[in-house]
Amino acid sequence: MERSSLAQRAVHLSATMPRPGAHEGIPFDSGHAFPGVLPDLRAAAELALSEYRAETLQYGVRPGLPELREWISGYLHGEGAEVPAEEVVVVNGAKHGIDLLCRLLLDEGDSIVVTAPTYFTAIPIFKSFGASFIEVSQDEEGLDTSELEAVLARLVREGRRLPKFIYNVPDFHNPTGVTMSRRRREALVELSARHRILILEDSPYRKVRFEGAPEPMIKALDRANTILIGTFAKLIAPGLRIGWVSASTDALARIIQLKSDGGSCPLTQRIIVEFCRAGGLDAHIQSVQRTYGSHRDHMVAAVRRQLPELSMTVPHGGYYLWLKLPEGMDGDELTTRAADAGVTILAGSKFFAGQPQKNYIRLAYSHATPVQIDEGVGRLAGALRSMASTSARA
Amino acid sequence: MERSSLAQRAVHLSATMPRPGAHEGIPFDSGHAFPGVLPDLRAAAELALSEYRAETLQYGVRPGLPELREWISGYLHGEGAEVPAEEVVVVNGAKHGIDLLCRLLLDEGDSIVVTAPTYFTAIPIFKSFGASFIEVSQDEEGLDTSELEAVLARLVREGRRLPKFIYNVPDFHNPTGVTMSRRRREALVELSARHRILILEDSPYRKVRFEGAPEPMIKALDRANTILIGTFAKLIAPGLRIGWVSASTDALARIIQLKSDGGSCPLTQRIIVEFCRAGGLDAHIQSVQRTYGSHRDHMVAAVRRQLPELSMTVPHGGYYLWLKLPEGMDGDELTTRAADAGVTILAGSKFFAGQPQKNYIRLAYSHATPVQIDEGVGRLAGALRSMASTSARA
Repeated sequence: MERSSLAQRAVHLSATMPRPGAHEGIPFDSGHAFPGVLPDLRAAAELALSEYRAETLQYGVRPGLPELREWISGYLHGEGAEVPAEEVVVVNGAKHGIDLLCRLLLDEGDSIVVTAPTYFTAIPIFKSFGASFIEVSQDEEGLDTSELEAVLARLVREGRRLPKFIYNVPDFHNPTGVTMSRRRREALVELSARHRILILEDSPYRKVRFEGAPEPMIKALDRANTILIGTFAKLIAPGLRIGWVSASTDALARIIQLKSDGGSCPLTQRIIVEFCRAGGLDAHIQSVQRTYGSHRDHMVAAVRRQLPELSMTVPHGGYYLWLKLPEGMDGDELTTRAADAGVTILAGSKFFAGQPQKNYIRLAYSHATPVQIDEGVGRLAGALRSMASTSARA
Repeated sequence: MERSSLAQRAVHLSATMPRPGAHEGIPFDSGHAFPGVLPDLRAAAELALSEYRAETLQYGVRPGLPELREWISGYLHGEGAEVPAEEVVVVNGAKHGIDLLCRLLLDEGDSIVVTAPTYFTAIPIFKSFGASFIEVSQDEEGLDTSELEAVLARLVREGRRLPKFIYNVPDFHNPTGVTMSRRRREALVELSARHRILILEDSPYRKVRFEGAPEPMIKALDRANTILIGTFAKLIAPGLRIGWVSASTDALARIIQLKSDGGSCPLTQRIIVEFCRAGGLDAHIQSVQRTYGSHRDHMVAAVRRQLPELSMTVPHGGYYLWLKLPEGMDGDELTTRAADAGVTILAGSKFFAGQPQKNYIRLAYSHATPVQIDEGVGRLAGALRSMASTSARA
C-alpha cells in the first residue's frame, strides 16, 4: 500500500532529520502537524478533479457535501454518538464552527463558561461577540463540575442570567492535555440539562490517543443539549480547512443561513470523502498516533531529565505538555528568554479568558522532530536557569 | 497542450449534449459554471500535494499564500490597477469578502448605497448587519451618478449621516449585465472622494467579456477610496472558494483579525498559483469567453425569436440577461409558471434591496447548453403566453 510506505517515510524522515543549527528556531509553540505525517492525498485529488470535476469545481451546497455528512455521521457512530447526517453541517474548520455558533447563540451581555485555562484561539472569538466569561477550574479529571454546580446555583439564587453555553475541550484538552473522566462528563450533562445550558464540545484531538480507552463523547451522553464541533485538521491535515458542527436541525438551519460564504469548498470535501473511502484514514490515524506518541515520550523524558523542577501531568494523547513552573517564576518572561535562546513556546497566561495565571507554559510536541525536541528542551532549560540565576542574584 | 484539448472537449460536449427531456428542468436560475468549461486542475493539484505538501496540508497564514497575493497583484497590474501584494488579502470567495467588509465597516443604523437592482446574494448579508439601503437607479451606462450626487447633497443639506459605502458591480452587473461607462466611473470616484465614502467594487465577471474593450477598474481610478472584491469563482471555477479583498493595509490588518477561520485553504490557494503559473489561466479565460459568448448569442437569438415582447440590453459579457416584461406583467408569477413548465428562472423582484420592481426576470445563460437554451426559452415563452391568455380572459 502506498499509504503505509508513506507512514514509513514519515518515520524515516524524522530519524534522518539533521541536528538543528544553533540559530535555527525550534517550534514548540504551534499546533502544526508534523510534516512527516501529512498524508498522501494525490489519489483522492486525482479522483476529485476528474470523475467528480462537475461537482468539485462547481458551487457546493451550504450544508456540505451529502456524502461527507454521511461519512461524519458514520464516524460519530463509531465514536458512540448517534448523529444522523441531517444533524451535521460542514464548516471551514473548527474555528469557523465556533464563530458561527457565537453568531447564532450570543447576544451582547451574555456570559459563557470556559475552563481556566482554555483554548486560547477561541478567546478572541468569544470576546468579539461581547461575551463575558465564567471560568471554572480543572484538575486531572477535567472541568470541575462541583465548582460549576456551585457557580450556577449561586446565579440562580441571585436571580441572575445563566450562561449561554459551556465551552469545553474534553479530550486531551488544549492546553492541559487532560481528558475529562466519565463521571465528570455525566455530571456536566446533568448540570446542562438541569439548567438548560448548552454544552459546546470541541474535540479535535480525540483520535490522537496514544494509550488507554476513550471516554464517551459528551454528545453520546446527551445529544439534545450538546453541540459538537469537529475538524479534519487533526484527523487528516490542518490545510484542508474543513470541520463540522453537529446540532439540532433547527439550529443547523440557522447556521446554514449564517454561512454567507456560499458553502465550504466542495473540492476539499470530496478529497476527504475519497481519502476516507479508500481506507486512507485508518492508516493515517495509526501513523499519527505512533508518531506523536513517540514525540510525547521524547519530550516528557527530556523535560524530566533537563527540567526536573517543572511539574506536569503526562497526557495520554493530543499535542501538548502543560508545565507548571516553580513558585514565583513568570511564564511570560521565560517565554521571552526561550525565544532569545532559539525555542518558541507559549506563555500559559495566553490561555486564560480572565485573570491569567502566570506560572505555566505550553509546549507542543506535535511539530518538532525528536532531535529538535531534545535540543529545544535543552535550550529551554538554559533559559530557565538564566532566570533562576538572575533572581538568585537579585 | 492538455488544456486546449480540454477546451475542445468542452465544445464537443456541448454540441453532442442530448435534447433535454420534457420533464428535465432547465436551469436558467443559477450563476453556476458551464460544466464543459471547468478547467483541468489535476497537474496543479499533483504538484500542490507532492512538492508543496508541507505547505498545502499545514495551517496557512491568515493574509493568504504570499505567492498568491503576488499573483493577484500582478493580475491587477494587468488590469491597470496598481495594488501591491501587501494590499491584498485572500478570503473564501467574494461573499466572504463582503461579509468581512460588513463586519469591519458597518455599525447598527448605517446606510449603504446599492443599485436598484443589485446582486441579490449580497442583500441578506448587508441586512444581517442592520444596514439600511439607499437605492440608486441604473441605465445603460451603469449607476446613475447624477442621482447619487443629488441624494448625497440632500443628506448633507439635512445634516444627516452619509452612507458608509457605495456597493457596485461595475463590470457586467448582476443582474443587469450593464458595464459602467468610464465617465460614470470617474463621476463616482469624484463623489466618493468629495464625501469621503468608500466604494466597494465587486467585479467577478470582468474577464468574461465577449467583445469590446474594458473600462478602467474603479480601483485603478482611485486606489485609496476603493475596496476591491475579487474572486476566482468566475476566473477559474466556483468550487475553489477563493477570492480576495484589496484595501489599505490598515483596513486589511483588521480584516485579517476578523478572519477567525484561521486562514483560507492553503491547498486550493497553491492549486490556483500553480495553474496560473503553468499558463492555464489564459487558455481557460479564452475558453470561457468563447463558450459563454456563444451561450449569450444563443439566448439573445432565442429570446428575440420567441419572446419579442420582452425588452433587453444585450450584455457584452457576464452570465445574465435582464429582461423587462410588458407593462403590468408580474415577474414573480412568470417565474412560478416557468418552473411549472420546466425552466427555472429568477424573478427580478429578488434583486431589489428596497421596494421591488415586479416586471423583470433574470436568465442565466452560463450553465445551460445551447440546446437547453433553445428549449428553455421556448418553455418560458409558453409560460408567458399562458399568463397573457389568462389575463386576456380575466
